[in-house]
Amino acid sequence: VDRKIVEQFFSKLQESIVVGLEGADGQARFRRDRWSASETPQFDGGGGLTCVIEDGAVFEKGGVNLSAVEGRLSSRIAAHLKVSPGPFFATGVSLVLHPRSPQIPTVHMNVRYLEIAAEEGWQDGVARRWFGGGADLTPYYLYAEDARHFHETLATACDDYRDDAYARFKSECDGYFRSPHRDEARGIGGIFFDYLEQDLEKVFEFVQGVGRAFLPSYLPIVERRRDEAWSEHHREWQLLRRGRYVEFNLVHDRGTLFGLETGGRTEAILMSLPPTANWRYNYQPEAGSPEAQLVDVLKHPRDWIER
Amino acid sequence: VDRKIVEQFFSKLQESIVVGLEGADGQARFRRDRWSASETPQFDGGGGLTCVIEDGAVFEKGGVNLSAVEGRLSSRIAAHLKVSPGPFFATGVSLVLHPRSPQIPTVHMNVRYLEIAAEEGWQDGVARRWFGGGADLTPYYLYAEDARHFHETLATACDDYRDDAYARFKSECDGYFRSPHRDEARGIGGIFFDYLEQDLEKVFEFVQGVGRAFLPSYLPIVERRRDEAWSEHHREWQLLRRGRYVEFNLVHDRGTLFGLETGGRTEAILMSLPPTANWRYNYQPEAGSPEAQLVDVLKHPRDWIER
Repeated sequence: VDRKIVEQFFSKLQESIVVGLEGADGQARFRRDRWSASETPQFDGGGGLTCVIEDGAVFEKGGVNLSAVEGRLSSRIAAHLKVSPGPFFATGVSLVLHPRSPQIPTVHMNVRYLEIAAEEGWQDGVARRWFGGGADLTPYYLYAEDARHFHETLATACDDYRDDAYARFKSECDGYFRSPHRDEARGIGGIFFDYLEQDLEKVFEFVQGVGRAFLPSYLPIVERRRDEAWSEHHREWQLLRRGRYVEFNLVHDRGTLFGLETGGRTEAILMSLPPTANWRYNYQPEAGSPEAQLVDVLKHPRDWIER
Repeated sequence: VDRKIVEQFFSKLQESIVVGLEGADGQARFRRDRWSASETPQFDGGGGLTCVIEDGAVFEKGGVNLSAVEGRLSSRIAAHLKVSPGPFFATGVSLVLHPRSPQIPTVHMNVRYLEIAAEEGWQDGVARRWFGGGADLTPYYLYAEDARHFHETLATACDDYRDDAYARFKSECDGYFRSPHRDEARGIGGIFFDYLEQDLEKVFEFVQGVGRAFLPSYLPIVERRRDEAWSEHHREWQLLRRGRYVEFNLVHDRGTLFGLETGGRTEAILMSLPPTANWRYNYQPEAGSPEAQLVDVLKHPRDWIER
């Protein structure tokens, strides 16, 4: 694969997602901030396009980011990535959407491509290159049909790649999007994959499929839930759960910490944080309530579809 | 020093602070949750008393925690602490208060004592023991007289210990309570110290002085600002700055991460998080506004008093 072609695909993917989400919101438009790596001294080149929506009819806050940068891995980050320190190239699309209604789930999707230069530098070629990515859903109130729809759409994108892809990536997702300090998952999962480097053209096709599956995996859920009633009680629960989302992203998420540590654009990276989040001491939902049912599923991840 | 005596002092300190804060709030009382380390499998013994206030007249949320536990350091944590892995004892008081009014600063104070067992275990005695602690103030609107009062009170507690103590610990505080990813301090500082292990009786006296200085350092500020008017505009700024407080605590604060990693009581550790916090994309206060003046001070820490 050619990094320019990957970058072009990601750029078109971002645009189509932004347009699709604006259509679904019907009110707010994304603010488009183009930035250049020359503003961030840690990078050697490249840039990105940060697209942010705020105060929409459906989306209270969200972002769809594109970046394509060259930089140098610190020894710490290199050890984390299990590669040797040196020049890298990274490009990807990353999105998080926080709807206003507690009936509509928060969603995250990311597709990325990385290259690590040969030990002597880019002039000697590429030492390693791989794709990674994933998507996961974080409902505040659980609708089994929504969870099934989300997983089914992602599974279909996986099936073309490998027979066992969905099962593997679903299980990796349950492992990754988990807060050990809370002993619970962040949501009802989805798929997660990293270091896919064998048969790269086929992997690229798979990654394109995952990217294209995003809108069909999520927008039907938005349409089903957007007119569902909710009260202050639902809202308070949403804000408390958003607090857990913040905890996961800032304490555990490797993507966020990698971004902040490599000197990425902080405002673009932290677009994943919700507009408002709450914390209460030792809040426990009432036994048998919809809130308690959600927590039970977060503690014991389920299989949502057959594969 | 004897660990029992240290623990007793910390316990009395907690009680006096809780009573003092309840007096200042005038409405809400602290909920007192006693817990035993037997609930948390990572600890070998001990327990604590978590005291939490919520929805008060002055304090929207806050906690004053006491703990005294025995456990075992993981090799990762031991490397962090620059000691060998093995049994440890830790006791301390830690507090964070988030007032409702944006005119009253958030405050944090901590005093702690640690022992690391000899390589063969406690039966062979203690390999290292030290005190640490500190206090820092996080205003939303800057009143120079409040900043001076807070620093002056802490400096007085430092002067009895060593002539250069305040200058050193003030500078360590500015270094510690800083978010590199935002290139700003969390607030207007205070003091921070760690690994004080020479002349331990004298250090213990100093630590007692710091603990006793807390109420006099903070309550006069509460009294001065509690009737100051504020609007939705002030409140929105407070919520955005609280977002930065969350970022510091979850991404950078060694105390929080140490607690979560050693399997501490999550709800007690995260009492430091505010009741509500907001994030907006790339929010910039108006040039010359009180909000912009605060940010300027956070970017360029000041000397508030002469020493």
